[in-house]
Amino acid sequence: MKLNPADKDFETALTEACSDIKVITECDQYQCDPRNRYVGQDGLVVAPLSTKDISNIINICHQWKVPVVPYGGGTGLVGGQLPVGLPRPVILTLERLNHIKGINFDHSLITVEAGCSLQQVQTAADSYNRLFPLSLASKGSCQIGGNLATNAGGANVVRYGNARDLCLGVEAVFADGSIWNGLSGLYKDNQGYDLRNLLIGSEGTLAIITAACLKLFPKLVDRTVVLASVPNPAASLQLFELTKQKFGQMVTAFELISKVGIDFLLETEPAFRSPFVTTPNWFVLADIGAESEFGIEECFVELLEYAQKNSLVSDALFAHSETQKQQFWNTRESIPLANRRIGSISSHDISLPLESIPVFIDNCGLKINQLGSFRINCFGHLGDGNLHYNVFPPVGEDRNKYTHYQQEVCETVYATVRELGGSTAAEHGTGRRLVRELSTYADSAYMQAVNAIKSSLDPNGILNPGVIIEMH
Amino acid sequence: MKLNPADKDFETALTEACSDIKVITECDQYQCDPRNRYVGQDGLVVAPLSTKDISNIINICHQWKVPVVPYGGGTGLVGGQLPVGLPRPVILTLERLNHIKGINFDHSLITVEAGCSLQQVQTAADSYNRLFPLSLASKGSCQIGGNLATNAGGANVVRYGNARDLCLGVEAVFADGSIWNGLSGLYKDNQGYDLRNLLIGSEGTLAIITAACLKLFPKLVDRTVVLASVPNPAASLQLFELTKQKFGQMVTAFELISKVGIDFLLETEPAFRSPFVTTPNWFVLADIGAESEFGIEECFVELLEYAQKNSLVSDALFAHSETQKQQFWNTRESIPLANRRIGSISSHDISLPLESIPVFIDNCGLKINQLGSFRINCFGHLGDGNLHYNVFPPVGEDRNKYTHYQQEVCETVYATVRELGGSTAAEHGTGRRLVRELSTYADSAYMQAVNAIKSSLDPNGILNPGVIIEMH
Repeated sequence: MKLNPADKDFETALTEACSDIKVITECDQYQCDPRNRYVGQDGLVVAPLSTKDISNIINICHQWKVPVVPYGGGTGLVGGQLPVGLPRPVILTLERLNHIKGINFDHSLITVEAGCSLQQVQTAADSYNRLFPLSLASKGSCQIGGNLATNAGGANVVRYGNARDLCLGVEAVFADGSIWNGLSGLYKDNQGYDLRNLLIGSEGTLAIITAACLKLFPKLVDRTVVLASVPNPAASLQLFELTKQKFGQMVTAFELISKVGIDFLLETEPAFRSPFVTTPNWFVLADIGAESEFGIEECFVELLEYAQKNSLVSDALFAHSETQKQQFWNTRESIPLANRRIGSISSHDISLPLESIPVFIDNCGLKINQLGSFRINCFGHLGDGNLHYNVFPPVGEDRNKYTHYQQEVCETVYATVRELGGSTAAEHGTGRRLVRELSTYADSAYMQAVNAIKSSLDPNGILNPGVIIEMH
Repeated sequence: MKLNPADKDFETALTEACSDIKVITECDQYQCDPRNRYVGQDGLVVAPLSTKDISNIINICHQWKVPVVPYGGGTGLVGGQLPVGLPRPVILTLERLNHIKGINFDHSLITVEAGCSLQQVQTAADSYNRLFPLSLASKGSCQIGGNLATNAGGANVVRYGNARDLCLGVEAVFADGSIWNGLSGLYKDNQGYDLRNLLIGSEGTLAIITAACLKLFPKLVDRTVVLASVPNPAASLQLFELTKQKFGQMVTAFELISKVGIDFLLETEPAFRSPFVTTPNWFVLADIGAESEFGIEECFVELLEYAQKNSLVSDALFAHSETQKQQFWNTRESIPLANRRIGSISSHDISLPLESIPVFIDNCGLKINQLGSFRINCFGHLGDGNLHYNVFPPVGEDRNKYTHYQQEVCETVYATVRELGGSTAAEHGTGRRLVRELSTYADSAYMQAVNAIKSSLDPNGILNPGVIIEMH
């Protein structure tokens, strides 16, 4: 598919067709990766104010065969927002579409433009005494449109699902510029095909999501947050199972954390104090809550006593105040930042069938250690089978001296994931980083269908080329 | 698209290519509609034993351009399983693919062949002390493959979601016979496009689902079932909101029922007794439950007292035993059968934004009564905004004398639904019944994408022609 650059003539045609777009000339921020691993190419950065103008832009790109790369908060970790090797693309930033469009009668649904930040939506929900439960460290800068385009995950997926599960309807612009008004507030709707879920997670390669109708939830009033030391990951899994049997959908989050995470925090943050007197090799953070007072803590104490008798737990710290709950979560949420400060050789966002987690951690650790002397920080959303598996140089060493290991480390991790039936793109998406991985290892009937759908909805191949589908 | 009939030569080619398919010559049951509204045309009914043979069948149909209609339990209500006006089709029944393939370590996932009945899956879950929460009156005969193909709903959607939400992975055969092994047991997987959700609800027009990986849940041990009289539908909605605020995801079901439903049961079932001394015009059935003893009933009593003080509830009956819980549910679940015995002029499965339910019931009732003297039985899944809206002749009259009203009644209902932003295909699917409705009223950008996807995945148009997409 031959594409053309967004040149001067094109820019003139574009600005003439639109009623209000801002052409942004300070472009550096649109080329940066949050982890400094990728650099996006230069492009024509445009910031429209309306869905109608997005439709105009896409329609002209379609006619001129100019690539268009949607840009949300720029927090994606797999390079989906950072084009490379294209004729000069249009970078379409959604930042001016940042309005809350409305909220329904009982405050269970909110309709927002795609450029609203996650925090903005959370704050709006909060002002109606409701919860928007998507929870990401980048909430201040990431945007709802990007969250949906990448089907973002986060810590509360065990209870509330991924971004996909929080969305009832979308408005989107297809590759020819046509606008789909699918902002339905319906819980049940079996008319036609489920295009909403197809667009969610398609990373801007099938359409541009311009607005969404999102589910809000009652706030939790009876909430228990616990750090529990476990002898090993297998025990953490058994503890999760027990917790789920007792609390069902009240389990908001169930995170696995290793001592390495705490070590990294101690190394990189002078003010940090471990919550434990003696930090265990493995511990979990469990967050359980209900909409009324049901005595969750008492019930969880009972469960932990049982777990302790059965050698699944050696110690447990209960958060005794809102501040302490927040402190427990801060510890968990600071780990990615500590990772960045230490500097990983290779980082992976993987998922596994739950039962395979302990064997994965064992096997992968062994294999990595056969390659050399590394530090592994493995942690994440145990309840979803989603681990962040990051490999670092030994203490005090610079990652730049280890870049030659990167490919081998990465391939070792991914091969182990594949052997166990896992996914190499759990919650961060496929982006540009995992395109080759996908085309090489995905089921062939599946990939044939994926390619057919891409060609049918974007025949000129203008939408985010190089993401999900390989460029030829 | 020119299609060819499944003639003798074709049948020979088919049976030669497959290792084990049964050709069924007693075909009557495959042409019947559960409500006796449609009759399917004659076809070549084949019952394969394996996914490999389904792949062979579909591949040959693709080559010979012979239409193929997948057949599950035959319980669909919109004619999706009943072809009309096609060259003699292959009727592909999944009934021999009825094996439970496996269950995972903590019994939270079960993998089943598509021809398993819903009840079979429920029973298998039960044997591991788990719950498969999809709940349909036809559970004994409907099949999981059909449940997924139509994205079935039912009574427990408020808590557990539609069939779509209960499925983590599918195995499916595409229109060229290629097999996608997508039986993933992963909770988070953002590799590529979400084809699972696209196939779910596509009613056999994009691929044939041959197996599925399904979520199981802990059983509920603290469960309260209540019938509460409400002054009107608006009050029932406010009561639902209060209940959701207090119990969140513990609300398993929240049904709205009208006195007409009870009248119909009294008319058609001599042994039936109303649960109420004086049956109110409207009442709700609320089912709330938790995985541990949390004192749900006590908490709901409090809520109902508050609701009573605020004139939202006039009376409430608590089920005091498992038997009584079942009795309350039997009352609700017998209504569709009573409807069939009375004989409706026109039946509708619609959904609305929650806040529009009271105005819909008022407006639609007024309009229907302007057409003539009818009885309306409106009931259903209030918590999902999903109503079953059925129009009947006056007491003692035969529906056959009222068939000339059918179209006008139906159009009145659907026009009112559309005005309020609702859906005319809530949980029963589009099938053949609602194809024209969809092509006429759906968003045009959406329909263009739907058609493009259909053409890309089934270029010869062999898969369930006439369903979702209009035949030309």
